[in-house]
Amino acid sequence: MQIAMIQDKIVPISELEPAYLDRGIFFGDGVYEVVRSYNGKIFALEEHMQRFVNSLSAIEISGVDIYQILRRVLKSFDAAGISNAKIYFHITRGSALRNHVCDADLEPNFFLTVTESENDTEAKTKGISVSTHPDLRWKRCDIKSLNLLANVLARQDAAQKGCAEAILVDEEGFITEGASSAFFAIFGRKLRTAALTVNILPSITRKFVIRAGKNVGLETMEKSLTPQQANNADELFIASTTNDIIPVVRFDEKLIGDGNPGKYTKLLIQEFYSFTV
Amino acid sequence: MQIAMIQDKIVPISELEPAYLDRGIFFGDGVYEVVRSYNGKIFALEEHMQRFVNSLSAIEISGVDIYQILRRVLKSFDAAGISNAKIYFHITRGSALRNHVCDADLEPNFFLTVTESENDTEAKTKGISVSTHPDLRWKRCDIKSLNLLANVLARQDAAQKGCAEAILVDEEGFITEGASSAFFAIFGRKLRTAALTVNILPSITRKFVIRAGKNVGLETMEKSLTPQQANNADELFIASTTNDIIPVVRFDEKLIGDGNPGKYTKLLIQEFYSFTV
Repeated sequence: MQIAMIQDKIVPISELEPAYLDRGIFFGDGVYEVVRSYNGKIFALEEHMQRFVNSLSAIEISGVDIYQILRRVLKSFDAAGISNAKIYFHITRGSALRNHVCDADLEPNFFLTVTESENDTEAKTKGISVSTHPDLRWKRCDIKSLNLLANVLARQDAAQKGCAEAILVDEEGFITEGASSAFFAIFGRKLRTAALTVNILPSITRKFVIRAGKNVGLETMEKSLTPQQANNADELFIASTTNDIIPVVRFDEKLIGDGNPGKYTKLLIQEFYSFTV
Repeated sequence: MQIAMIQDKIVPISELEPAYLDRGIFFGDGVYEVVRSYNGKIFALEEHMQRFVNSLSAIEISGVDIYQILRRVLKSFDAAGISNAKIYFHITRGSALRNHVCDADLEPNFFLTVTESENDTEAKTKGISVSTHPDLRWKRCDIKSLNLLANVLARQDAAQKGCAEAILVDEEGFITEGASSAFFAIFGRKLRTAALTVNILPSITRKFVIRAGKNVGLETMEKSLTPQQANNADELFIASTTNDIIPVVRFDEKLIGDGNPGKYTKLLIQEFYSFTV
């Protein structure tokens, strides 16, 4: 008889919960999104839904009704009643006995959580330390997929060095992005970040940061930089949905500026908040 | 209240089955093995357990009692009573609310299935077609991890072309391996396959194929080859735990030899079976 074992318990395969046969766990065969709300209002939901559609299409998961997903997101957010919430959701290709190639008519699985957004005010006011790590990820990081082991390992390494984010460096020696954030440097009145390629997630927050930059008088330069150049920046920061803008005050042991969040970074944080109200 | 949603059903997070919060699904944060049995005897179990230990160590999942895992594998195999079985098992870093960095004391999750091994006699006697695809995987394919989306996408592409395996080609134009197999070519009396690097899984079957090659009078050459070179091989085959040796008779539309499994490939299949009894 075909069987499964969960920890040390034997279960007939026919009685397994579908979660155990999810292609998300066997292969990371799925895509995800994270949105957050500020004071009861979800920020940039439309942009996130559009990116989710792009991710689903890139890995050829079809038959998903995106308006149904949108309704589920709104219904869950409403049911949770959390004003500053983090909403995570993923869709995987479905559940079946493990096989790289699966039936085209497999039913996709949807999963979502609504949790309290942990606003790290200390990180935001004092800034964080980051460290550089080789970018070992796959060659389609523009897809927001569940294949994130390289990101996890880099973040773990960074944490062991007392750093709050891992900054990834490609084989040519250029910074791509953070393990779970976009990376920005400010030189004078220039706001610099890597251009979008297949190796970089098209971050929604990045888009709003660039808009905020324009509003505070910064000129944007989309060109990747090296760790050496980052070391010599006037200001550094990371940006992500969950924490919007976080100043970086230490980069691989080197203090940035006077070791405090820079003036433009503080202006950008203020300006970004004006988008969320 | 913090909540989850599974398909369209809302569940309090506190009542979620651990399977839904598995880091295996959020990040592919785990490693796996597949072993099979021939006539009631598991083949090369020790080698697979050793590789599993290496994979766990590479991604720093600690606190796993490998002898306990071995006992679980044997107990499940025994309970299933399947003579020609495929045994899949994985360990993930554990279940927790999604966060790249997790508590060091998280309890790893173990999951296993024992299913009938589907011996594809037609593939073995007639050979298969394969197609080449860019190798988009991450830069540590020597770790048998759950991050397999690139493999799945390549296999899907191959299937759409009527091919049973995707042969992966790196940015320098060299074949690394199949999406779920090792890749071999025979030129005269030379058995050629890529050398083991961080981009290639240290296949157990590969090791036994090389041993079988020596026994039938083939000289081994561990050096990667290009698709053009593969096109001109006398014989081609793939090797994997689940199907041991499968002849390749068509490579990107080009017939190999006379379009039938080659003589050395057939000898290797026989020789390999002698190891399994």
